[in-house]
Amino acid sequence: MSEIFIGIDLGGTNIKIGCFDSQLNLISKTAVATEADMGPEVVIDKMAQTVEKLLADSNLSPQDVVAAGIGTPGPAKYSEGIIIKSTNMPKFKNVPIRQMLSEKLGGKPVSFDNDANVACLGEYAVGAGKGVNNMVFFTLGTGIGGGIINDGKLVHGCGENAAELGHIIIYPDGRKCNCGQKGCVEAYASADSTARRATEAVEAGAQSSLKKVLDEKGKITSKDVYEHLAAGDELAKQITDGTAKALALTCINMLHITEPKRIVFAGGMIAAGDVLLNRIRDYFNEHIWTLKKETVQIVFATLGEDAGIIGAAALAKQAQP
Amino acid sequence: MSEIFIGIDLGGTNIKIGCFDSQLNLISKTAVATEADMGPEVVIDKMAQTVEKLLADSNLSPQDVVAAGIGTPGPAKYSEGIIIKSTNMPKFKNVPIRQMLSEKLGGKPVSFDNDANVACLGEYAVGAGKGVNNMVFFTLGTGIGGGIINDGKLVHGCGENAAELGHIIIYPDGRKCNCGQKGCVEAYASADSTARRATEAVEAGAQSSLKKVLDEKGKITSKDVYEHLAAGDELAKQITDGTAKALALTCINMLHITEPKRIVFAGGMIAAGDVLLNRIRDYFNEHIWTLKKETVQIVFATLGEDAGIIGAAALAKQAQP
Repeated sequence: MSEIFIGIDLGGTNIKIGCFDSQLNLISKTAVATEADMGPEVVIDKMAQTVEKLLADSNLSPQDVVAAGIGTPGPAKYSEGIIIKSTNMPKFKNVPIRQMLSEKLGGKPVSFDNDANVACLGEYAVGAGKGVNNMVFFTLGTGIGGGIINDGKLVHGCGENAAELGHIIIYPDGRKCNCGQKGCVEAYASADSTARRATEAVEAGAQSSLKKVLDEKGKITSKDVYEHLAAGDELAKQITDGTAKALALTCINMLHITEPKRIVFAGGMIAAGDVLLNRIRDYFNEHIWTLKKETVQIVFATLGEDAGIIGAAALAKQAQP
Repeated sequence: MSEIFIGIDLGGTNIKIGCFDSQLNLISKTAVATEADMGPEVVIDKMAQTVEKLLADSNLSPQDVVAAGIGTPGPAKYSEGIIIKSTNMPKFKNVPIRQMLSEKLGGKPVSFDNDANVACLGEYAVGAGKGVNNMVFFTLGTGIGGGIINDGKLVHGCGENAAELGHIIIYPDGRKCNCGQKGCVEAYASADSTARRATEAVEAGAQSSLKKVLDEKGKITSKDVYEHLAAGDELAKQITDGTAKALALTCINMLHITEPKRIVFAGGMIAAGDVLLNRIRDYFNEHIWTLKKETVQIVFATLGEDAGIIGAAALAKQAQP
């Protein structure tokens, strides 16, 4: 009999499901539309049916399953397995998803955590964080999410809202963040903020090849910034430097706080590649206490779009006694 | 037979030793000169003899001792029980203090951690942090030290240098810190930095009753700042505001990172009293994400100068299976 772990990435648009062996190697995966408007009962039914079909298609039996894990955006009471509400799934209110799915999976244990923590755990278990016990994780997307691994375990905090790393203030009284604070790292270094800083600079009259993009498309994306950076545009370089410095300062602070061995960046922004990574490392080494230089490895995530399902399977595995 | 825990606070000048019951109530305490120049063998011998005498004076037997704990400034390999070196005790180099003391205490288990972590654990166990599982601790002295309790345990990090909270950068490219970084919270809010900012302001010509202090004593201390604040001096108010804002920003960041339920300030600076505490709370509430207002309690430590021995006893107790 195989020992199988199921990883589920529940998003507003799609449910991604993966089937993993006990070493978290991917055996098979699939995705179905969430259809969140149908309500939690229907969605969770579909989730269980998709798990069964995936197992059957992989010549596995439901009895092979040890446990399942789910990652989804908050807010939620993770320890109780309840989605409190969801921006992308308005009908999900106080849904005891862990219990509901467990019942539909024949009583198999189900674990549950937020999407950033789950992706962090996936990178820790089998990705860029493999082999260390202390890690810090950032997702650089529309916003900035985070995760912290301390001695091999996710840090949840007193109210399960720890590791909201995008809202670390790096420039007091600086740029306004979506959260209402001023000077959060998210207000400088997320994909959205990077694009916005470029747009503002062009609108303020900065010389840049990005002006043509703004004129023609009506907006600048973070991808545009990297493409023009690669082509040698000076403004794109300045904007990327601002992103890198904000992230480097955040890395320095995290080193002094939880002292990770490795800091892992994930999300759309890492498509910028080595030019971003090297600038982060440069700023880090320039600003860090000399004694602590080279004590942390700053790297990019390696799991790509499967991080959600891998992490959810890792969550399920870690919850086993 | 009683269950006794011994707490030892090893400083460069004095060794403080306390004898505690299993609820960490202080039974008796004593202090002897460290005489660090005599070298580690002599110092540790004296430490063991002082423990024995303290037990005898308290009508207790060495057999009553369950375990002992030691707190001392770093750098050290705490998990291995070794003092690597010590600024205040130059003859202490690679001293396996945990093992040496254990042998002299008849093989009783000895625990060992740095002074800030130990004080943090003391406040957590029986002081201002009692009753919560997640806490952040700052000592505001010459520098700023820190400790983090996550789910009831100290956070040590990958190299046992976590929670160096004084070196969180709050003002990038700001005031130079002793560590070489710029803009650390220690460079604004330690007792020394508070005094230095006041001195600089007076020297730069600011109107203040502190000018007389500088002229007469040749220096301004943080205590002077508070006394003149209480007397209504405007510069003393501005300087204290700067200290409070720096600490509040650090609290905000810690809330987003490890999400403590309580943040505890200790050290000489808390003699400033409610005027400092209230300014920290005001700045915190002014700058924090609205959703997270009132989610953390910001308080002053309650154990005073016994924090070191209480924390060391708590360390010994927590290490028991």
